[in-house]
Amino acid sequence: QLTVKNTKLQDVKIITPKVFGDNRGFFEETYSDCDFKEAGIDFNFVQDNQSLSSRAGVLRGLHFQRGKAAQTKLIRVVTGAVLDVIVDVRKGSPTYKQWEGYILSASNHRQLLVPRGFAHGFLTLTDNVNFLYKVDNYYNAEADGGFSFKTPELGIDWPIEFDKAITSEKDAAQPTFTEFEKNN
Amino acid sequence: QLTVKNTKLQDVKIITPKVFGDNRGFFEETYSDCDFKEAGIDFNFVQDNQSLSSRAGVLRGLHFQRGKAAQTKLIRVVTGAVLDVIVDVRKGSPTYKQWEGYILSASNHRQLLVPRGFAHGFLTLTDNVNFLYKVDNYYNAEADGGFSFKTPELGIDWPIEFDKAITSEKDAAQPTFTEFEKNN
Ligand SMILES: Cc1cn([C@H]2C[C@H](O)[C@@H](COP(=O)(O)OP(=O)(O)O[C@H]3O[C@@H](C)[C@H](O)[C@@H](O)[C@H]3O)O2)c(=O)[nH]c1=O
Ligand SMILES: Cc1cn([C@H]2C[C@H](O)[C@@H](COP(=O)(O)OP(=O)(O)O[C@H]3O[C@@H](C)[C@H](O)[C@@H](O)[C@H]3O)O2)c(=O)[nH]c1=O
Repeated sequence: QLTVKNTKLQDVKIITPKVFGDNRGFFEETYSDCDFKEAGIDFNFVQDNQSLSSRAGVLRGLHFQRGKAAQTKLIRVVTGAVLDVIVDVRKGSPTYKQWEGYILSASNHRQLLVPRGFAHGFLTLTDNVNFLYKVDNYYNAEADGGFSFKTPELGIDWPIEFDKAITSEKDAAQPTFTEFEKNN
Repeated sequence: QLTVKNTKLQDVKIITPKVFGDNRGFFEETYSDCDFKEAGIDFNFVQDNQSLSSRAGVLRGLHFQRGKAAQTKLIRVVTGAVLDVIVDVRKGSPTYKQWEGYILSASNHRQLLVPRGFAHGFLTLTDNVNFLYKVDNYYNAEADGGFSFKTPELGIDWPIEFDKAITSEKDAAQPTFTEFEKNN
Protein backbone atom coordinates (compact mmCIF):
# COMPACT_ATOMS: atom_id res chain seq x y z
CA GLN A 1 0.00 0.00 0.00
CA LEU A 2 2.94 2.43 -0.17
CA THR A 3 5.88 3.34 -2.36
CA VAL A 4 9.25 4.40 -0.99
CA LYS A 5 11.89 6.33 -2.94
CA ASN A 6 15.44 7.13 -1.93
CA THR A 7 16.74 10.67 -2.45
CA LYS A 8 20.13 12.28 -3.00
CA LEU A 9 20.70 12.70 0.73
CA GLN A 10 21.68 9.52 2.54
CA ASP A 11 18.82 7.88 4.52
CA VAL A 12 16.25 10.46 3.42
CA LYS A 13 13.18 8.84 1.85
CA ILE A 14 9.95 9.92 0.19
CA ILE A 15 6.96 7.74 1.03
CA THR A 16 3.68 7.83 -0.87
CA PRO A 17 0.79 5.84 0.61
CA LYS A 18 -2.03 4.48 -1.52
CA VAL A 19 -5.04 6.80 -1.75
CA PHE A 20 -8.56 5.38 -2.26
CA GLY A 21 -10.74 7.98 -3.95
CA ASP A 22 -14.53 7.76 -4.23
CA ASN A 23 -17.72 9.88 -4.43
CA ARG A 24 -17.20 11.11 -0.84
CA GLY A 25 -13.55 12.18 -1.12
CA PHE A 26 -10.73 9.80 -0.24
CA PHE A 27 -9.39 7.42 2.36
CA GLU A 28 -5.71 6.84 3.13
CA GLU A 29 -3.74 4.85 5.68
CA THR A 30 -1.18 7.54 6.44
CA TYR A 31 0.84 5.26 8.72
CA SER A 32 0.88 1.54 9.39
CA ASP A 33 3.46 0.12 11.73
CA CYS A 34 3.69 -3.19 9.89
CA ASP A 35 3.60 -1.81 6.32
CA PHE A 36 6.21 0.86 7.07
CA LYS A 37 8.48 -1.66 8.85
CA GLU A 38 8.13 -4.05 5.94
CA ALA A 39 9.19 -1.19 3.65
CA GLY A 40 12.31 -0.65 5.78
CA ILE A 41 11.03 2.35 7.78
CA ASP A 42 11.48 1.00 11.27
CA PHE A 43 11.19 3.61 14.03
CA ASN A 44 9.32 3.84 17.29
CA PHE A 45 7.30 7.03 16.78
CA VAL A 46 6.22 8.26 20.21
CA GLN A 47 4.82 11.73 19.48
CA ASP A 48 2.61 13.30 16.78
CA ASN A 49 2.80 17.04 16.15
CA GLN A 50 0.69 19.48 14.18
CA SER A 51 1.32 23.08 13.31
CA LEU A 52 -1.05 25.41 11.52
CA SER A 53 0.54 28.22 9.56
CA SER A 54 -2.24 30.66 8.66
CA ARG A 55 -0.50 32.47 5.82
CA ALA A 56 1.72 31.80 2.84
CA GLY A 57 5.21 33.07 3.67
CA VAL A 58 5.48 31.54 7.15
CA LEU A 59 9.00 30.21 7.57
CA ARG A 60 9.71 27.83 10.47
CA GLY A 61 13.31 26.64 10.96
CA LEU A 62 15.96 25.55 10.72
CA HIS A 63 15.61 23.38 13.82
CA PHE A 64 16.91 20.23 15.33
CA GLN A 65 17.44 18.57 18.70
CA ARG A 66 21.04 17.96 19.72
CA GLY A 67 22.78 14.76 20.79
CA LYS A 68 20.72 12.09 22.51
CA ALA A 69 17.54 14.11 21.98
CA ALA A 70 17.85 13.81 18.17
CA GLN A 71 14.58 13.04 16.38
CA THR A 72 13.71 11.11 13.26
CA LYS A 73 10.78 12.97 11.66
CA LEU A 74 8.08 11.60 9.38
CA ILE A 75 6.51 14.67 7.82
CA ARG A 76 3.40 15.38 5.77
CA VAL A 77 1.03 18.16 4.81
CA VAL A 78 -2.75 17.84 5.26
CA THR A 79 -3.80 21.16 3.72
CA GLY A 80 -1.91 23.54 1.45
CA ALA A 81 1.70 23.20 0.33
CA VAL A 82 5.20 23.86 1.64
CA LEU A 83 8.77 23.90 0.48
CA ASP A 84 10.40 21.63 3.01
CA VAL A 85 14.15 22.07 3.49
CA ILE A 86 16.53 19.74 5.28
CA VAL A 87 20.26 20.00 5.88
CA ASP A 88 22.52 17.07 6.70
CA VAL A 89 24.47 18.22 9.79
CA ARG A 90 25.71 14.74 10.73
CA LYS A 91 29.47 15.16 11.10
CA GLY A 92 31.21 12.53 9.00
CA SER A 93 28.21 11.97 6.70
CA PRO A 94 29.15 11.83 2.98
CA THR A 95 26.42 14.41 2.38
CA TYR A 96 27.42 16.68 5.33
CA LYS A 97 26.30 20.32 4.86
CA GLN A 98 24.24 19.45 1.80
CA TRP A 99 20.64 20.69 1.69
CA GLU A 100 17.63 19.60 -0.34
CA GLY A 101 14.18 21.08 -0.87
CA TYR A 102 10.98 19.06 -1.37
CA ILE A 103 7.47 20.18 -2.21
CA LEU A 104 5.03 18.52 0.17
CA SER A 105 1.35 19.20 -0.36
CA ALA A 106 -2.12 17.95 0.42
CA SER A 107 -2.48 16.90 -3.19
CA ASN A 108 0.79 14.98 -3.64
CA HIS A 109 0.23 12.99 -0.40
CA ARG A 110 3.99 12.76 0.04
CA GLN A 111 5.70 12.01 3.30
CA LEU A 112 9.33 12.87 3.97
CA LEU A 113 11.47 10.77 6.29
CA VAL A 114 14.07 13.02 7.92
CA PRO A 115 16.77 11.10 9.83
CA ARG A 116 18.24 12.06 13.19
CA GLY A 117 20.97 14.63 12.81
CA PHE A 118 19.29 16.71 10.11
CA ALA A 119 18.22 20.32 10.53
CA HIS A 120 14.69 20.96 9.28
CA GLY A 121 12.53 23.88 8.24
CA PHE A 122 9.78 24.83 5.83
CA LEU A 123 8.26 27.76 3.99
CA THR A 124 4.50 27.79 3.44
CA LEU A 125 3.52 28.29 -0.22
CA THR A 126 -0.21 28.68 0.54
CA ASP A 127 -2.41 29.97 3.35
CA ASN A 128 -3.71 27.53 5.97
CA VAL A 129 -1.05 24.87 5.97
CA ASN A 130 -1.72 22.03 8.38
CA PHE A 131 1.68 20.41 8.81
CA LEU A 132 1.91 17.06 10.64
CA TYR A 133 4.85 15.02 11.79
CA LYS A 134 5.64 11.98 13.85
CA VAL A 135 8.88 11.88 15.88
CA ASP A 136 10.75 9.02 17.53
CA ASN A 137 12.05 11.03 20.49
CA TYR A 138 10.19 13.47 22.75
CA TYR A 139 10.38 17.24 22.57
CA ASN A 140 13.21 18.56 24.70
CA ALA A 141 13.37 22.35 24.95
CA GLU A 142 16.93 22.26 26.36
CA ALA A 143 18.28 20.24 23.46
CA ASP A 144 16.40 22.40 20.93
CA GLY A 145 18.86 24.12 18.59
CA GLY A 146 19.17 25.41 15.09
CA PHE A 147 20.55 28.06 12.82
CA SER A 148 19.17 30.91 10.79
CA PHE A 149 17.32 30.18 7.54
CA LYS A 150 19.19 33.25 6.23
CA THR A 151 22.59 31.67 6.80
CA PRO A 152 24.60 32.33 3.61
CA GLU A 153 27.17 29.50 3.82
CA LEU A 154 24.84 26.72 2.68
CA GLY A 155 23.35 28.53 -0.32
CA ILE A 156 19.79 27.53 0.49
CA ASP A 157 17.51 28.89 -2.20
CA TRP A 158 14.36 30.01 -0.32
CA PRO A 159 11.82 31.43 -2.79
CA ILE A 160 11.01 34.46 -0.64
CA GLU A 161 12.61 37.77 0.29
CA PHE A 162 13.88 37.32 3.83
CA ASP A 163 12.26 40.48 5.17
CA LYS A 164 8.86 39.23 3.95
CA ALA A 165 9.07 35.91 5.80
CA ILE A 166 6.76 35.51 8.81
CA THR A 167 8.85 33.92 11.57
CA SER A 168 8.95 33.41 15.33
CA GLU A 169 11.13 35.68 17.45
CA LYS A 170 13.24 32.64 18.26
CA ASP A 171 13.92 31.98 14.58
CA ALA A 172 14.68 35.63 13.83
CA ALA A 173 17.50 35.39 16.39
CA GLN A 174 19.09 32.06 15.35
CA PRO A 175 22.89 32.01 14.76
CA THR A 176 24.54 31.49 11.39
CA PHE A 177 25.51 27.99 10.35
CA THR A 178 29.19 28.77 11.05
CA GLU A 179 28.42 29.84 14.64
CA PHE A 180 26.14 26.83 15.07
CA GLU A 181 28.81 24.45 13.76
CA LYS A 182 31.33 25.58 16.38
CA ASN A 183 29.05 24.42 19.18
CA ASN A 184 27.63 21.30 17.53
CA GLN B 1 -0.29 19.33 28.35
CA LEU B 2 -3.74 17.74 27.96
CA THR B 3 -7.10 17.54 29.67
CA VAL B 4 -9.22 14.40 29.74
CA LYS B 5 -12.96 14.30 30.43
CA ASN B 6 -15.19 11.30 30.95
CA THR B 7 -18.52 11.13 29.14
CA LYS B 8 -21.89 9.47 29.72
CA LEU B 9 -20.82 6.33 27.85
CA GLN B 10 -18.51 4.05 29.80
CA ASP B 11 -14.81 4.30 28.79
CA VAL B 12 -15.45 7.05 26.21
CA LYS B 13 -13.23 10.09 26.81
CA ILE B 14 -12.74 13.54 25.35
CA ILE B 15 -9.13 14.69 25.22
CA THR B 16 -8.06 18.27 24.60
CA PRO B 17 -4.33 18.87 24.06
CA LYS B 18 -2.70 22.20 24.82
CA VAL B 19 -2.52 24.56 21.84
CA PHE B 20 0.31 27.12 21.56
CA GLY B 21 -0.84 30.05 19.43
CA ASP B 22 1.46 32.74 18.03
CA ASN B 23 1.91 35.16 15.09
CA ARG B 24 2.40 32.24 12.67
CA GLY B 25 -0.62 30.15 13.65
CA PHE B 26 -0.38 27.42 16.30
CA PHE B 27 1.56 24.38 17.42
CA GLU B 28 0.07 21.34 19.15
CA GLU B 29 1.33 17.96 20.31
CA THR B 30 -1.64 15.95 19.07
CA TYR B 31 -0.34 12.73 20.58
CA SER B 32 2.39 11.87 23.06
CA ASP B 33 2.82 8.29 24.16
CA CYS B 34 4.02 9.21 27.64
CA ASP B 35 1.57 12.07 28.29
CA PHE B 36 -1.43 10.03 27.11
CA LYS B 37 -0.34 6.99 29.14
CA GLU B 38 0.11 9.19 32.20
CA ALA B 39 -3.43 10.46 31.64
CA GLY B 40 -4.71 6.85 31.60
CA ILE B 41 -5.00 6.47 27.83
CA ASP B 42 -2.81 3.45 27.33
CA PHE B 43 -3.10 1.81 23.91
CA ASN B 44 -0.66 0.61 21.32
CA PHE B 45 -1.76 2.60 18.28
CA VAL B 46 -0.37 0.83 15.20
CA GLN B 47 -2.13 2.61 12.33
CA ASP B 48 -3.04 6.22 11.45
CA ASN B 49 -5.89 6.91 9.05
CA GLN B 50 -7.11 9.98 7.21
CA SER B 51 -10.24 10.54 5.21
CA LEU B 52 -11.14 13.65 3.28
CA SER B 53 -14.84 14.32 2.83
CA SER B 54 -15.17 17.02 0.19
CA ARG B 55 -18.69 18.16 1.00
CA ALA B 56 -20.94 18.89 3.93
CA GLY B 57 -23.51 16.08 4.16
CA VAL B 58 -21.10 13.17 3.75
CA LEU B 59 -22.16 10.43 6.15
CA ARG B 60 -19.72 7.57 6.85
CA GLY B 61 -20.88 4.75 9.11
CA LEU B 62 -21.88 3.09 11.25
CA HIS B 63 -18.84 0.81 11.20
CA PHE B 64 -16.87 -1.45 13.43
CA GLN B 65 -14.59 -4.47 13.27
CA ARG B 66 -15.90 -7.67 14.84
CA GLY B 67 -14.36 -9.89 17.50
CA LYS B 68 -10.59 -10.05 17.76
CA ALA B 69 -10.23 -7.39 15.06
CA ALA B 70 -11.95 -4.77 17.27
CA GLN B 71 -10.29 -1.35 17.25
CA THR B 72 -9.90 1.40 19.82
CA LYS B 73 -10.07 4.68 17.88
CA LEU B 74 -8.56 8.04 18.79
CA ILE B 75 -10.34 10.51 16.54
CA ARG B 76 -9.85 14.14 15.60
CA VAL B 77 -10.69 16.68 12.90
CA VAL B 78 -7.98 18.79 11.22
CA THR B 79 -10.23 20.92 8.99
CA GLY B 80 -13.95 21.58 9.16
CA ALA B 81 -16.42 20.02 11.60
CA VAL B 82 -18.38 16.81 12.05
CA LEU B 83 -21.08 15.33 14.20
CA ASP B 84 -19.43 12.17 15.41
CA VAL B 85 -21.76 9.40 16.54
CA ILE B 86 -20.86 6.29 18.49
CA VAL B 87 -23.02 3.41 19.70
CA ASP B 88 -22.09 1.05 22.50
CA VAL B 89 -22.61 -2.44 21.03
CA ARG B 90 -20.67 -4.27 23.75
CA LYS B 91 -23.04 -6.99 24.96
CA GLY B 92 -23.29 -6.76 28.74
CA SER B 93 -22.17 -3.14 28.92
CA PRO B 94 -24.33 -0.97 31.24
CA THR B 95 -24.64 1.50 28.33
CA TYR B 96 -25.42 -1.16 25.68
CA LYS B 97 -27.35 0.24 22.68
CA GLN B 98 -26.90 3.81 23.87
CA TRP B 99 -25.61 6.37 21.39
CA GLU B 100 -23.97 9.77 21.82
CA GLY B 101 -23.09 12.55 19.40
CA TYR B 102 -20.08 14.85 19.72
CA ILE B 103 -19.08 17.88 17.69
CA LEU B 104 -15.43 17.55 16.68
CA SER B 105 -13.90 20.42 14.76
CA ALA B 106 -10.62 21.99 13.76
CA SER B 107 -11.35 24.85 16.12
CA ASN B 108 -12.28 22.88 19.25
CA HIS B 109 -9.17 20.63 18.93
CA ARG B 110 -11.09 17.82 20.60
CA GLN B 111 -10.14 14.19 20.36
CA LEU B 112 -12.60 11.39 21.03
CA LEU B 113 -11.47 8.06 22.45
CA VAL B 114 -13.78 5.33 21.14
CA PRO B 115 -13.28 1.97 22.87
CA ARG B 116 -13.28 -1.43 21.18
CA GLY B 117 -16.79 -2.73 20.66
CA PHE B 118 -18.37 0.59 19.68
CA ALA B 119 -19.89 1.28 16.28
CA HIS B 120 -18.75 4.59 14.82
CA GLY B 121 -19.84 7.05 12.15
CA PHE B 122 -19.89 10.74 11.36
CA LEU B 123 -21.72 13.39 9.36
CA THR B 124 -19.72 16.27 7.92
CA LEU B 125 -21.11 19.69 8.86
CA THR B 126 -18.77 21.61 6.52
CA ASP B 127 -17.02 21.06 3.20
CA ASN B 128 -13.44 19.73 3.17
CA VAL B 129 -13.31 17.75 6.36
CA ASN B 130 -9.95 16.14 7.03
CA PHE B 131 -10.74 13.45 9.57
CA LEU B 132 -7.86 11.63 11.30
CA TYR B 133 -7.78 8.64 13.60
CA LYS B 134 -5.32 6.31 15.24
CA VAL B 135 -6.30 2.66 15.79
CA ASP B 136 -4.80 -0.06 17.97
CA ASN B 137 -5.56 -2.95 15.61
CA TYR B 138 -5.03 -3.21 11.85
CA TYR B 139 -7.71 -2.85 9.20
CA ASN B 140 -9.32 -6.20 8.46
CA ALA B 141 -11.77 -6.16 5.56
CA GLU B 142 -13.24 -9.55 6.54
CA ALA B 143 -14.03 -8.44 10.08
CA ASP B 144 -15.46 -5.12 8.85
CA GLY B 145 -19.14 -4.83 9.80
CA GLY B 146 -21.74 -2.31 10.67
CA PHE B 147 -25.34 -1.28 10.42
CA SER B 148 -27.31 1.40 8.65
CA PHE B 149 -27.18 4.97 9.94
CA LYS B 150 -30.92 5.01 9.11
CA THR B 151 -31.66 2.21 11.55
CA PRO B 152 -34.75 3.34 13.50
CA GLU B 153 -34.36 1.25 16.69
CA LEU B 154 -31.65 3.39 18.28
CA GLY B 155 -33.29 6.76 17.70
CA ILE B 156 -30.12 8.42 16.45
CA ASP B 157 -30.85 12.04 15.69
CA TRP B 158 -28.84 12.82 12.52
CA PRO B 159 -29.36 16.46 11.52
CA ILE B 160 -29.89 15.64 7.83
CA GLU B 161 -32.61 14.18 5.63
CA PHE B 162 -31.47 10.65 4.83
CA ASP B 163 -31.96 10.97 1.07
CA LYS B 164 -29.64 14.01 1.06
CA ALA B 165 -26.74 12.20 2.75
CA ILE B 166 -23.72 11.43 0.54
CA THR B 167 -22.69 7.86 1.35
CA SER B 168 -20.73 4.93 -0.05
CA GLU B 169 -22.57 2.11 -1.80
CA LYS B 170 -21.48 -0.16 1.04
CA ASP B 171 -23.12 2.10 3.63
CA ALA B 172 -26.32 2.49 1.60
CA ALA B 173 -26.71 -1.31 1.82
CA GLN B 174 -25.95 -1.87 5.53
CA PRO B 175 -28.47 -3.92 7.57
CA THR B 176 -30.65 -2.51 10.35
CA PHE B 177 -29.42 -2.70 13.92
CA THR B 178 -31.85 -5.57 14.65
CA GLU B 179 -30.46 -7.64 11.77
CA PHE B 180 -26.91 -6.73 12.78
CA GLU B 181 -27.55 -7.72 16.41
CA LYS B 182 -28.64 -11.24 15.43
CA ASN B 183 -25.22 -11.94 13.92
CA ASN B 184 -23.09 -10.04 16.40
C1 LIG C 1 8.30 21.48 18.69
C2 LIG C 1 7.49 21.59 19.98
C3 LIG C 1 7.09 22.80 20.51
N1 LIG C 1 6.36 22.88 21.64
C4 LIG C 1 5.91 24.19 22.14
C5 LIG C 1 7.05 25.15 22.46
C6 LIG C 1 6.49 26.50 22.06
O1 LIG C 1 5.74 27.05 23.15
C7 LIG C 1 5.50 26.21 20.95
C8 LIG C 1 6.05 26.54 19.57
O2 LIG C 1 7.32 25.95 19.44
P1 LIG C 1 8.29 26.35 18.23
O3 LIG C 1 9.59 25.65 18.45
O4 LIG C 1 8.30 27.81 18.04
O5 LIG C 1 7.48 25.67 17.00
P2 LIG C 1 8.01 25.46 15.50
O6 LIG C 1 6.87 25.04 14.67
O7 LIG C 1 8.80 26.65 15.07
O8 LIG C 1 9.02 24.24 15.71
C9 LIG C 1 9.08 23.14 14.85
O9 LIG C 1 9.65 23.54 13.61
C10 LIG C 1 9.83 22.50 12.68
C11 LIG C 1 10.49 23.10 11.44
C12 LIG C 1 10.70 21.39 13.28
O10 LIG C 1 10.75 20.26 12.43
C13 LIG C 1 10.11 20.92 14.60
O11 LIG C 1 10.96 19.93 15.18
C14 LIG C 1 9.92 22.07 15.54
O12 LIG C 1 11.21 22.59 15.89
O13 LIG C 1 5.19 24.81 21.06
C15 LIG C 1 5.99 21.73 22.32
O14 LIG C 1 5.30 21.78 23.36
N2 LIG C 1 6.34 20.50 21.81
C16 LIG C 1 7.09 20.38 20.67
O15 LIG C 1 7.38 19.22 20.24
C1 LIG D 1 -11.00 1.80 6.94
C2 LIG D 1 -9.98 1.37 5.88
C3 LIG D 1 -10.31 1.34 4.55
N1 LIG D 1 -9.40 0.97 3.60
C4 LIG D 1 -9.78 1.01 2.17
C5 LIG D 1 -10.94 0.10 1.80
C6 LIG D 1 -11.67 0.88 0.74
O1 LIG D 1 -11.09 0.61 -0.54
C7 LIG D 1 -11.37 2.36 1.04
C8 LIG D 1 -12.55 3.06 1.71
O2 LIG D 1 -13.00 2.27 2.81
P1 LIG D 1 -14.38 2.57 3.53
O3 LIG D 1 -14.61 1.46 4.53
O4 LIG D 1 -15.44 2.84 2.53
O5 LIG D 1 -14.01 3.95 4.26
P2 LIG D 1 -14.86 4.71 5.39
O6 LIG D 1 -14.26 6.04 5.60
O7 LIG D 1 -16.30 4.63 5.06
O8 LIG D 1 -14.57 3.79 6.66
C9 LIG D 1 -14.26 4.30 7.93
O9 LIG D 1 -15.44 4.89 8.47
C10 LIG D 1 -15.28 5.38 9.82
C11 LIG D 1 -16.62 5.94 10.24
C12 LIG D 1 -14.80 4.26 10.73
O10 LIG D 1 -14.48 4.77 12.01
C13 LIG D 1 -13.54 3.62 10.17
O11 LIG D 1 -13.15 2.54 11.02
C14 LIG D 1 -13.77 3.13 8.78
O12 LIG D 1 -14.72 2.08 8.79
O13 LIG D 1 -10.23 2.35 1.90
C15 LIG D 1 -8.11 0.62 3.97
O14 LIG D 1 -7.26 0.27 3.11
N2 LIG D 1 -7.75 0.64 5.29
C16 LIG D 1 -8.64 1.01 6.27
O15 LIG D 1 -8.25 1.04 7.48
